[in-house]
Amino acid sequence: MTDGYDRRLLVGVDIGGSKIAVLVVDRDERVLARRVAPTAAGAPERAVDEIAAVVANALAYAHATNDDIAAIGVGVPGRVDPLTGTVTLAVNLGWQDLPLGTRLEQRFGRPCVVENDVRAAALGLHRRRVVGPIDDLAYLAVGTGVSAGVILDGRLHRGARGLAGEIGHVIVEPGGALCACGQHGCLETLVSGSAIARLARGAANAGRGTIPSVDGRAAGEAGALDAGAGRGGAIGPNATAIDVYRAAASGDPLATEIADAVGRRLAWAVHLLVMTYDVERVVLGGGVSHAGETFVLPIQRELDRMRATSALAREQLTPDIVQLLPPGADAGAWGAVVIAATAHAGIGAGYGWEEVGHVQET
Amino acid sequence: MTDGYDRRLLVGVDIGGSKIAVLVVDRDERVLARRVAPTAAGAPERAVDEIAAVVANALAYAHATNDDIAAIGVGVPGRVDPLTGTVTLAVNLGWQDLPLGTRLEQRFGRPCVVENDVRAAALGLHRRRVVGPIDDLAYLAVGTGVSAGVILDGRLHRGARGLAGEIGHVIVEPGGALCACGQHGCLETLVSGSAIARLARGAANAGRGTIPSVDGRAAGEAGALDAGAGRGGAIGPNATAIDVYRAAASGDPLATEIADAVGRRLAWAVHLLVMTYDVERVVLGGGVSHAGETFVLPIQRELDRMRATSALAREQLTPDIVQLLPPGADAGAWGAVVIAATAHAGIGAGYGWEEVGHVQET
Repeated sequence: MTDGYDRRLLVGVDIGGSKIAVLVVDRDERVLARRVAPTAAGAPERAVDEIAAVVANALAYAHATNDDIAAIGVGVPGRVDPLTGTVTLAVNLGWQDLPLGTRLEQRFGRPCVVENDVRAAALGLHRRRVVGPIDDLAYLAVGTGVSAGVILDGRLHRGARGLAGEIGHVIVEPGGALCACGQHGCLETLVSGSAIARLARGAANAGRGTIPSVDGRAAGEAGALDAGAGRGGAIGPNATAIDVYRAAASGDPLATEIADAVGRRLAWAVHLLVMTYDVERVVLGGGVSHAGETFVLPIQRELDRMRATSALAREQLTPDIVQLLPPGADAGAWGAVVIAATAHAGIGAGYGWEEVGHVQET
Repeated sequence: MTDGYDRRLLVGVDIGGSKIAVLVVDRDERVLARRVAPTAAGAPERAVDEIAAVVANALAYAHATNDDIAAIGVGVPGRVDPLTGTVTLAVNLGWQDLPLGTRLEQRFGRPCVVENDVRAAALGLHRRRVVGPIDDLAYLAVGTGVSAGVILDGRLHRGARGLAGEIGHVIVEPGGALCACGQHGCLETLVSGSAIARLARGAANAGRGTIPSVDGRAAGEAGALDAGAGRGGAIGPNATAIDVYRAAASGDPLATEIADAVGRRLAWAVHLLVMTYDVERVVLGGGVSHAGETFVLPIQRELDRMRATSALAREQLTPDIVQLLPPGADAGAWGAVVIAATAHAGIGAGYGWEEVGHVQET
């Protein structure tokens, strides 16, 4: 049994489509444990068990017990009510109205705050100064979905309903492809991992050529986004986004055309983020961004073109306006740590840097 | 000579393309004077004289002297450096690098803070609860230019470079009409007052009919935007935006077609503001909005269509999401008053409600 003072640990949990990452850190942000485990598909209840198991494992590794935990923060790829800790909808995890925060609080007997994973990652990369001491930045996640986590003046911008940064559903091509949201031509229908796979499939079906892919995976399959990189070889119409970028890197003309089109749209999105929020940096992440240079170069080229034609664009789209999220930054898990630190201060207080030092036991 | 305690008055100055409005208010927000004077075109120096004259007139009306002024706030239709009070560029006023704040400080011997007029209006309508107690709102000004002033969590969002809300330069139609910013197909090229006039002129030149207009005014002329309403009669190819809306109100098919197209684009802009900022209300203002219902109904129709197709849109685009700025709200001048109140607190403190009570003399 420890007294309040010893409840010094913050636990950050980043839940992805294919893995769970857990960080256990002390008040000085020293990492006592870092654990990553694959996520098995399954019922929400089993998922809660799995998350709890990874957290317990990380605590054991840190030679700590539940009593040492000040609070737990969790980032979830989906829609979240941070006030109640309920995951209202996480399509890729198959969760709906899951009271994740309450369940984890029951397991560990400690406060738990839940947040959307992209917002958490924005918080984490700001907190850890991953891109330097910048207090106005957007984290643009391009994966199965597309959305942005936005830090304004050092604080996470959640919006009136906690839905700020949903730029994946800004309409880019009126009358375009049907989006999951019910509208047509949303940004997400043009640049998400599944959209890129669909573009490749469409080109293949139109007899315009095929993109090398790993056999057996269906094009646009959510779980296939990150998988398979490096395993490629066979040729088929079932290319994933990563396959498209791998082929583009090898000089495949069709894949290059798709990568260029996606890059133009994402440059537009970067420009949009800068014109609306006036952020100093747009950090690119998400599964599709793992394609690295092949992903980012077409974006840079289009930004260069915009700068060449417009003085306003030159001023706003500074040479370092976009940056890939560095591998190993653990932005999501660190963001969950920041969220944990706010468990006592309350969500209404925002997620500013200053709150982290204010976690107090009562 | 009065002591610090008596320096109780805040002066708000709203500079428009055709008029200057001045409010003199006390610490309890009681209006002691309200003065409106036409702006004469002329050299920047003469403009400073004119502004000073209207302020002096308002002070006299309030039975006050310069010594009674705590601070002066000014809203200017252009680009502003609020830290120095310099108007870097106000195209419609013909000003460039005008140290307006310094000049007015010299005239009145009191602190003066300068801000962009659209941001000031957003502050003013928030401060005066013009649309109710809403702390997340956007003021979308559609006039000669198009931009938004955004209040997030009760504070003005300026952005890293003070350029937040420049949604007039978000690209809507790649390869579209050339914008003053150097890019093609910006929102401003599709919905601003001059864009609407250009569309009417284009239709007239193509022999598709003409819009009733007041003879002698050139289509798209900045100063003609607000002028002439109600004076119409003659038919010509020189219709202004207000002429187009007046004709649409009378059932003119070409004008209706243009008003509908503009409405669709502005509904898109409203959707964009809501998806990015997650604001609860978008208040529509600016010269073009003076067309009233004829201006707002096509926007509402398009929003209805979006709601009908998308659950996400239904949730985010609430039935009261858009609202016309009520006439006589004096949002710009009230915003300038709020800005004046921050003269002591410093710009960095933001323009939150709470700063107004903190004006102190040293």
